Amino acid sequence: MQTRLIPSFLKTTSKAGEAPGALKHIGKKKIEVPHITMWVYNKEVCEERTVDNVNDCKTFILNDHVNWINLDGIHNTQIVESLGQQFGLHPLLLEDILNTSHRPKIEEFEDCFFVVVKMLHYSEKDKRVSVEQVSIVLKDNLVLTFQEQPQDIFDPMRERLRAGKGKLRSSGSDYLVYRILDAITDGYFTILEHIGNDIEEMEEQFIANPNDTFISSVYQMKREMLFVRRAIYPLRDVVVQLQHSESQFISDTTVPFLRDVYDHAIQATDSVDTFRDLLSNMLDNYLSLISNKMNSVMKVLTIIATIFIPLTFIAGVYGMNFKNMPELEWTLGYPAVWCVMITVFIVMVTYFRRKGWF
Amino acid sequence: MQTRLIPSFLKTTSKAGEAPGALKHIGKKKIEVPHITMWVYNKEVCEERTVDNVNDCKTFILNDHVNWINLDGIHNTQIVESLGQQFGLHPLLLEDILNTSHRPKIEEFEDCFFVVVKMLHYSEKDKRVSVEQVSIVLKDNLVLTFQEQPQDIFDPMRERLRAGKGKLRSSGSDYLVYRILDAITDGYFTILEHIGNDIEEMEEQFIANPNDTFISSVYQMKREMLFVRRAIYPLRDVVVQLQHSESQFISDTTVPFLRDVYDHAIQATDSVDTFRDLLSNMLDNYLSLISNKMNSVMKVLTIIATIFIPLTFIAGVYGMNFKNMPELEWTLGYPAVWCVMITVFIVMVTYFRRKGWF
Amino acid sequence: MQTRLIPSFLKTTSKAGEAPGALKHIGKKKIEVPHITMWVYNKEVCEERTVDNVNDCKTFILNDHVNWINLDGIHNTQIVESLGQQFGLHPLLLEDILNTSHRPKIEEFEDCFFVVVKMLHYSEKDKRVSVEQVSIVLKDNLVLTFQEQPQDIFDPMRERLRAGKGKLRSSGSDYLVYRILDAITDGYFTILEHIGNDIEEMEEQFIANPNDTFISSVYQMKREMLFVRRAIYPLRDVVVQLQHSESQFISDTTVPFLRDVYDHAIQATDSVDTFRDLLSNMLDNYLSLISNKMNSVMKVLTIIATIFIPLTFIAGVYGMNFKNMPELEWTLGYPAVWCVMITVFIVMVTYFRRKGWF
Amino acid sequence: MQTRLIPSFLKTTSKAGEAPGALKHIGKKKIEVPHITMWVYNKEVCEERTVDNVNDCKTFILNDHVNWINLDGIHNTQIVESLGQQFGLHPLLLEDILNTSHRPKIEEFEDCFFVVVKMLHYSEKDKRVSVEQVSIVLKDNLVLTFQEQPQDIFDPMRERLRAGKGKLRSSGSDYLVYRILDAITDGYFTILEHIGNDIEEMEEQFIANPNDTFISSVYQMKREMLFVRRAIYPLRDVVVQLQHSESQFISDTTVPFLRDVYDHAIQATDSVDTFRDLLSNMLDNYLSLISNKMNSVMKVLTIIATIFIPLTFIAGVYGMNFKNMPELEWTLGYPAVWCVMITVFIVMVTYFRRKGWF
Amino acid sequence: MQTRLIPSFLKTTSKAGEAPGALKHIGKKKIEVPHITMWVYNKEVCEERTVDNVNDCKTFILNDHVNWINLDGIHNTQIVESLGQQFGLHPLLLEDILNTSHRPKIEEFEDCFFVVVKMLHYSEKDKRVSVEQVSIVLKDNLVLTFQEQPQDIFDPMRERLRAGKGKLRSSGSDYLVYRILDAITDGYFTILEHIGNDIEEMEEQFIANPNDTFISSVYQMKREMLFVRRAIYPLRDVVVQLQHSESQFISDTTVPFLRDVYDHAIQATDSVDTFRDLLSNMLDNYLSLISNKMNSVMKVLTIIATIFIPLTFIAGVYGMNFKNMPELEWTLGYPAVWCVMITVFIVMVTYFRRKGWF
Repeated sequence: MQTRLIPSFLKTTSKAGEAPGALKHIGKKKIEVPHITMWVYNKEVCEERTVDNVNDCKTFILNDHVNWINLDGIHNTQIVESLGQQFGLHPLLLEDILNTSHRPKIEEFEDCFFVVVKMLHYSEKDKRVSVEQVSIVLKDNLVLTFQEQPQDIFDPMRERLRAGKGKLRSSGSDYLVYRILDAITDGYFTILEHIGNDIEEMEEQFIANPNDTFISSVYQMKREMLFVRRAIYPLRDVVVQLQHSESQFISDTTVPFLRDVYDHAIQATDSVDTFRDLLSNMLDNYLSLISNKMNSVMKVLTIIATIFIPLTFIAGVYGMNFKNMPELEWTLGYPAVWCVMITVFIVMVTYFRRKGWF
Repeated sequence: MQTRLIPSFLKTTSKAGEAPGALKHIGKKKIEVPHITMWVYNKEVCEERTVDNVNDCKTFILNDHVNWINLDGIHNTQIVESLGQQFGLHPLLLEDILNTSHRPKIEEFEDCFFVVVKMLHYSEKDKRVSVEQVSIVLKDNLVLTFQEQPQDIFDPMRERLRAGKGKLRSSGSDYLVYRILDAITDGYFTILEHIGNDIEEMEEQFIANPNDTFISSVYQMKREMLFVRRAIYPLRDVVVQLQHSESQFISDTTVPFLRDVYDHAIQATDSVDTFRDLLSNMLDNYLSLISNKMNSVMKVLTIIATIFIPLTFIAGVYGMNFKNMPELEWTLGYPAVWCVMITVFIVMVTYFRRKGWF
Repeated sequence: MQTRLIPSFLKTTSKAGEAPGALKHIGKKKIEVPHITMWVYNKEVCEERTVDNVNDCKTFILNDHVNWINLDGIHNTQIVESLGQQFGLHPLLLEDILNTSHRPKIEEFEDCFFVVVKMLHYSEKDKRVSVEQVSIVLKDNLVLTFQEQPQDIFDPMRERLRAGKGKLRSSGSDYLVYRILDAITDGYFTILEHIGNDIEEMEEQFIANPNDTFISSVYQMKREMLFVRRAIYPLRDVVVQLQHSESQFISDTTVPFLRDVYDHAIQATDSVDTFRDLLSNMLDNYLSLISNKMNSVMKVLTIIATIFIPLTFIAGVYGMNFKNMPELEWTLGYPAVWCVMITVFIVMVTYFRRKGWF
Repeated sequence: MQTRLIPSFLKTTSKAGEAPGALKHIGKKKIEVPHITMWVYNKEVCEERTVDNVNDCKTFILNDHVNWINLDGIHNTQIVESLGQQFGLHPLLLEDILNTSHRPKIEEFEDCFFVVVKMLHYSEKDKRVSVEQVSIVLKDNLVLTFQEQPQDIFDPMRERLRAGKGKLRSSGSDYLVYRILDAITDGYFTILEHIGNDIEEMEEQFIANPNDTFISSVYQMKREMLFVRRAIYPLRDVVVQLQHSESQFISDTTVPFLRDVYDHAIQATDSVDTFRDLLSNMLDNYLSLISNKMNSVMKVLTIIATIFIPLTFIAGVYGMNFKNMPELEWTLGYPAVWCVMITVFIVMVTYFRRKGWF
Repeated sequence: MQTRLIPSFLKTTSKAGEAPGALKHIGKKKIEVPHITMWVYNKEVCEERTVDNVNDCKTFILNDHVNWINLDGIHNTQIVESLGQQFGLHPLLLEDILNTSHRPKIEEFEDCFFVVVKMLHYSEKDKRVSVEQVSIVLKDNLVLTFQEQPQDIFDPMRERLRAGKGKLRSSGSDYLVYRILDAITDGYFTILEHIGNDIEEMEEQFIANPNDTFISSVYQMKREMLFVRRAIYPLRDVVVQLQHSESQFISDTTVPFLRDVYDHAIQATDSVDTFRDLLSNMLDNYLSLISNKMNSVMKVLTIIATIFIPLTFIAGVYGMNFKNMPELEWTLGYPAVWCVMITVFIVMVTYFRRKGWF
C-alpha cells in the first residue's frame, strides 16, 4: 500500500509572534552536510571551487565576472545567515529561503531580485511526485542559489560552463538565472512525460481489464496532479514579473529567453489541466460503464428470479399434505398444473418483453 | 455528536432603519469585563500600563512615541464610543468595530486607516475552527486594536517590546500594524497545520478501515474549510490595498514587510483550496470504492440466488402430491431430475461466465 | 404542499415593437389605491404631508430644503407619468420604474441619478422570500422613491425625521438616498438571519432524524437562495458606480457612508454564497449517509438470503416424491443431509467473511 | 418523439482555402423569393416602397432623410452583392451577412457600423427555440437590414413610421438602429416568458406526479437554454461597444437608449442563467427524491423477503421424505417447529428494528 | 476497439539542461523527405519553384515581391537551421519550430513575427481528431511556413496565386499570413461540422436505441473535444496580439481581415464549448433515464417476489410431513389455507398500492 502523506510544502509550521528577523528552517533536513560550490566565470576564464568556510565566499567574488554561489542543504541557518550578511540580503528574504513551504514567487528588492521556484521529481517506483524548493537571488553580477539537496538537473549547465563554449559563458548573470529557470521548467516536462505515460497505461488498462486498483490509481494520480499544479501554476506570474520588470538586472537580450520560460510554464500548466480532464473523463467513463454493466446483470438475474418465484409457489401449493385436496385426485391435475405454470411463465415473459425490460 | 452551529459571524443581526450613528454591539459577549492595556514606546523607553478609566487614555498619549491601545472585550459600547470621541474616529468606523460579523476589509479615512481582520482558533477536542474579529485603527503614531477577548497571540510581540530589542521598538506605528497582521496570519498557519494533520489522519484512516464516521468527519472538515476560507480570503485584498496606498501612514521600509504578509495570505488561501481539493478527491475515491465493493457483493450473491431459484422450482414440482404423476413412478425419474438440474446449473453458469458477469 | 411559483421579477412581459415611450405597468398590482407622501425638511423645519392630487407635487417643492416624494403603488401609470412630467424625467426612466422585473441597476442621466434596487421580505410561515422593487430618483434637492406597496422598512427613518435630531435632518438629499439604501441593505440582513436560523434548524434536523421532507426543504431553500442572490448581487455594482461617480449630486461627506452600503452588499452576497455552500455540503453529506446506510442494509440482508437459498434447494430435493430415491431409505439419510447443509452454511459464511463482506 | 436537431447556426459549413471575397450563402434557404422593402422618411414625409430590381435601390436614396432598406431572404448572393456594390460595403461584411452561423458581433468599419444579432422564436407546439440571424448596417443616414425570412417583429415599428408620430420619425438613423435592436431584445422576453411558463408547468408537474417524460422534458429545456444563452450572451458586448464607440454615427441622445438595450440584454442572460439554475435544482431534487423513494421501497421489501427465506427453509426441511426423521413422529414436533419459526421471526424483526432499518 | 493514445503534442520530451540553442526535433517524423516549395510573386508575376538545395533559398528572394517559402517535413534539423541562418532567425524561434508540442502562440521579435498554430484533421473512420503544428514567420516581404507534412489545405490559395487574380496577388506578405491563418481556421469549421454531425447521430441513436457503445462513444467524443479545445483556444490571443501589434509588418488594410480570423476563432471555441455542453447534457439525460428505468424494473420485480415469498412459506408449512398436524386432517383445511393466502396477497397489494409503490 502506498503512503499518502501530504507533501511537506503544504504543512507549514507556524512561528506566530516571533520576530520576522529570527531565522528558522522550516522543512525536512534532506542531507547531512551543507555544501557550497562557487563558479566565477567570464568569457575568458571559468573557475570552479568548493567553499568550505562560508565566510570566505565574499573574498572569491570577482568584478567583471559572473559569480554563482550554490548552496546544497539549507537546514543550517548559520550558513544562510552568513551569506545574507556578506551580500547584504534583506532579513525577510533569508527567512523565505529557509522556509521550504513557500509557493513560487518573485520579489524585487531595491538591490536584488529574489525568486522562489519548485523543482519536481518523479519516483517511478511508487508513481509519486516530490517537490523541492529552489531560491535564486540575482544581485548585479552575483547569482545565489539555494537548494534543499544536490540535484543533477544543473549538471549539463555545469558541463557547458566547463567546456567554455556557448552563450552561457559569454553572457551576464541574468542569462545564468534564465538558464537555471529553464533547466527547472524543462524538468517539469520530464515529469509530465512520465505522468502522460502513466495515464496512457491507465487508458490501456481501462480498455483491457480494469481491476480493483484501477480506481485507486486514477484518484492517486489526480491527487498528485493537485500538488504538481500547485507547484507549477504560480511560476507563470513569476516569469511575467521578471520579464516586465524595468530593472537594470535584466538585459534586453535576455527578455526573449524569459518569454520562452513563460511559454514553457504556460504549456506545463496547460498539460496538467488537460491531464486532469483526461483522468476525470476516464473515471466518469469507467464509473458509467461499471454502473451500466451492474444494471444489466441485476436486471436479467432479477427477471429470472421473479418468473420462478410464483411458479415455485404453485408447486408449493400442491406439495401440501392436506387430506382433502380434490385437485390431487384428478387424473389431469398434474398436466393441468403444468399448463397453468407454463401459462404464467409465458404471460410474464411477454409482459416484461413488451415493457422492454429485456 | 458534535454541534454544528453556524459561526456567529454569519448570523448578522439587522438594525434596519436605525441611524447609522447608533452604536450597538453585534456578536457574543465573550468576557465579562473589558480590559484596556496601553503601550507607549520608542527606541529608548517603553511604558506598559493597564487603563482603568477609558477616558484617561488620551492623557497618556505621548508624541514622538508609538502609542498602542488594546481593548479586550468590545461588548461595552460606551468604552468604544469614548475611545472614538477621544481620538476623533468616524461613527461608521465605531459601528464596524462593534459588529463582529464583518468580513475582513480595509478602509482609508482621511486621517486614519481602519482594518478589520479575523483571527482563527482551532479546538483540538472537537476539531472545530472558531473565528474572532480584530479591528485595527492606525492614526499617525497611534494604533488602536479591538479584540473580542484576550488572546495570547500577541504575547511574543509584547515580550519583544519589553525586552527592548529588535526592529519593533525602533520602528514606527505602521511597523507595529505590520507585526499585528503578521502575528495573525502566522496564526493561520498554526490552524492549517492542525487541519493538515487531521486530513493526513483521515487519509490513514481511509487506507486502514474507514468506518461509519469517516464520511461525516470529511464533510465536517469541508464545512470548517468554508469558514476558514471566508475568514482568510478577503485578507489578500486588504493587504494589497494597504501596500499600494499612497498614504503617509505607511513608510517605504514597511512596504516589503506588508508584501510578506500578502505572500502569507496567498499561501494560506492556496493551502485551504488544496485541502478542499484533497478532501473532495478522498471523498470521491471513498464513495467510488464503496460503490464498487457493494456492486461486487451484490453481483456474486445475486448470481448464486438466481442459479438456485429455478433448481428449487424443479424440486418443488416433484414434491407435488398429485396422484397421477407418471415421472414419480419411473425407476430413473430421480436420477433424470438430477441430470436436468445439473444441466440447468451448468448452462446458467456457462452463460453468466460468457457474459463476463463473474 | 408549498407553492413554488417563479417570482414575478423573472417573468417579464414583453412589449416587442411598442414605442419605448409607451408607459405600461409590468408586474402585479399589490395595493388598490396608490399613495403619495411628501417630506420637505431642512435643519430647522420638517413638513410631512399626504398628497391627494399628484399634479400638486411640484407646488410643494421648496428650495433650500430636501424634498422627498414617496409613491406607494406604481400600477397607476398616470401618476408616474405626471410625476415624470412635473420633474422632467426621461421617458426610459419612467418605463423602468413601472417595470418591476428589472434587476438592480443605476443610471446616470444628465440631470439626475436613477437607482433600482430590490427589497426582500421573508415569510416565516412558508419559508419563502418575496421580492419587491424600489426605484429611487435623485435630482438636486429632490428625492423620488417608488414602491410597489407601503413598507414599514422606512418607518425608523421617518421617526428620525419627525424627531428632528441626527445627521439626517441636517444633511442633503444624497444622504437621504444613502439612508434609503442603508435601510434596504439592512433589511437583507434580517432575511439572512432568518435563513441562517432555518439552515441551523435543518442541520439540527439532519443530526437528529432527517425525515422525508428534509431533502425537499433543503432544495426549496437552495431555490430561494437563487432569487435572493439574484436580487442582491447587482447591488454591489450599483453602489460602486454611485460612489465613484463624479457627479455633483454626491457630496464628499456621503462617500464613506456609501462605502458602508457597499460593504454591506458584499457581506450579504458573501453570506448567500456561504449559505449555498453549507446547504450543498449538508445535502451531499446526507445523500452519502443515506446511500451508505442503504448499502449496509442491502448487504446483510442479501447475504442472509443467499445462504438460505441453496439450503432450501437441498431440502426441496428430498421433498420430492419419487418412488425410487435410495437416500430416503437410508437410516443416516436425514442426519447426512443436515451435515451437508451445515457444511454449505459454514463454507459460505467463511467465504463471505474472508471476502470482507460482513 | 421530438426531433433534437442541432440548430443550423452550430453547423457552420467550411469554405477552407476559398478567397474571402467569394460570396457564398451558409445556412438554410427559408423563403423562395427575396423581398426588398425600402423606407425613406424624415419628420415631414415617409415613403414606403417595395423594390423589385435591387439595382434601383441607390436611386431611391434621399439626403436629409433616413433611408431604411430591408431584405428578407439572403440566400440570393447576387442581391446582397449588388447592395454591397451600390453602397460600398466591405467584402468581409457581405460574407458575414450571408453566413447565418455567426455569433452576435459588432464591427466598426471606417465608414459604417456592422451589427449581427440573433432573433429567437419559440414554437409552443414542440417547445423548441429557433434562431434567426439579422444583420444591420448603419452608414450615415442609411440603415440596411438583412433577415432570413419576413418577421412580424418589426411591424409595430412600421405602424409607427406610417402613423408619423413619435420620436422615431423625427430622429436619425442611429435611433432607427436602436429601435431595431430594442424590438429584437424585447422579442427575447417573449421567449423567456414562454420558457418561464414552461418551467412553472414543470414545477407543478414535479409536485403533482412526475411521470417518465418529466426528466426528458427538463433535459430538453436545459438543451434549449444552451442555444438561447449562446444567442443572447454576446449581445451585451455588442451593445457596450456600440454605446462606447466614439463614432459620429451614434448621437448623444441615442446613447441612453442603447444603455436601455444593454440593460435588457443583461437581464435576459441573467434570466437564462436563473432558469438554468432552477432547472438543475429541480432535476437534482427530483433525482434525490426518486432515489430516496426507491431506497425505502427496496428496504422494506428486502426485509420481508429476508425474514421469510429462513422460515421457508425450516418448512422445507420438514417437508423432506426421509424414512428416518424422528422429529416427524413426535407429538409436539409440529408445534415445536412453529415455536422455532416464530422465535426466528421475532429475533430477526427485533434485530432489524434495533439497527434502525425500518 | 479504438486506440486511445494521448496526442503527441501532450507528450513533450524534455531536454533539461541542454543549451537552448541546440536544435532537436520533438515529435513524430511524418514524411520521409522534407520538401521545400517557394513562391515569389507580385501583382505582375508569380514564380513557383521546388527548391532542392535548401541553401539556395536566399538566392531566389526578390525585393518588391512577396516571397513565400514553405517547408513540408520538419524532422530534418539541418534544413531548418539552414533557413534560420540564411534569414537571421532567433535560435529560440528555430527551437520552437522543431518542437511540435507547442501550444498556439505568437512572438514578436525585433525583425519578425513568429506564429505557431495548430491544424486539425478529422478521421471519419475512427472519429478521431489529429493535430498538426504549423509555424509561420513573417519578416518584411518574406513569409516562411513550416508544416509537419504536406497538406491540401493551402491548395485553393495556390490555385489563386497561379490564376493571378484576386486580392492575394496584389497584396503584401501580411495579407498572405492572413490567408494562411484564414485557411487554417476555416479548416476548424470542417472539423466542427463533422463533430456536429457525429453528435447529431448520437442524439438520434440516443432516441432510437442506445446500446452499450453509446456511453463509450460519448465519452470518446468528449475526450476529443479536450484536444480540439486545447488546440483552438489559444488562437484567440494569438490573433488579438497580431491585430493590436503596432508593428510595421501589419498594414492597416489587413487589420479588418485579422478581425475576421479572430471572429472565426471565437466562434470555433464557442462551438466547441456548446458541443461539450450538449454532450454532457445528453449523457446526464441518458444516465438519468437508465437509472430511472432500472429503478422501475427493480421495483415491480421486487414487489412480485415479496408478495410470493410469504405465500410460498405458508405452502411450505403445510408441505411438512409431521404425523401430528391437525390442520391437514380438517375437511376445510385446504380451502382455509387458500383463504389465508389470498388474504395475505390482498393485504400486501393494498399496502403497497397505498404507499404508492406501484
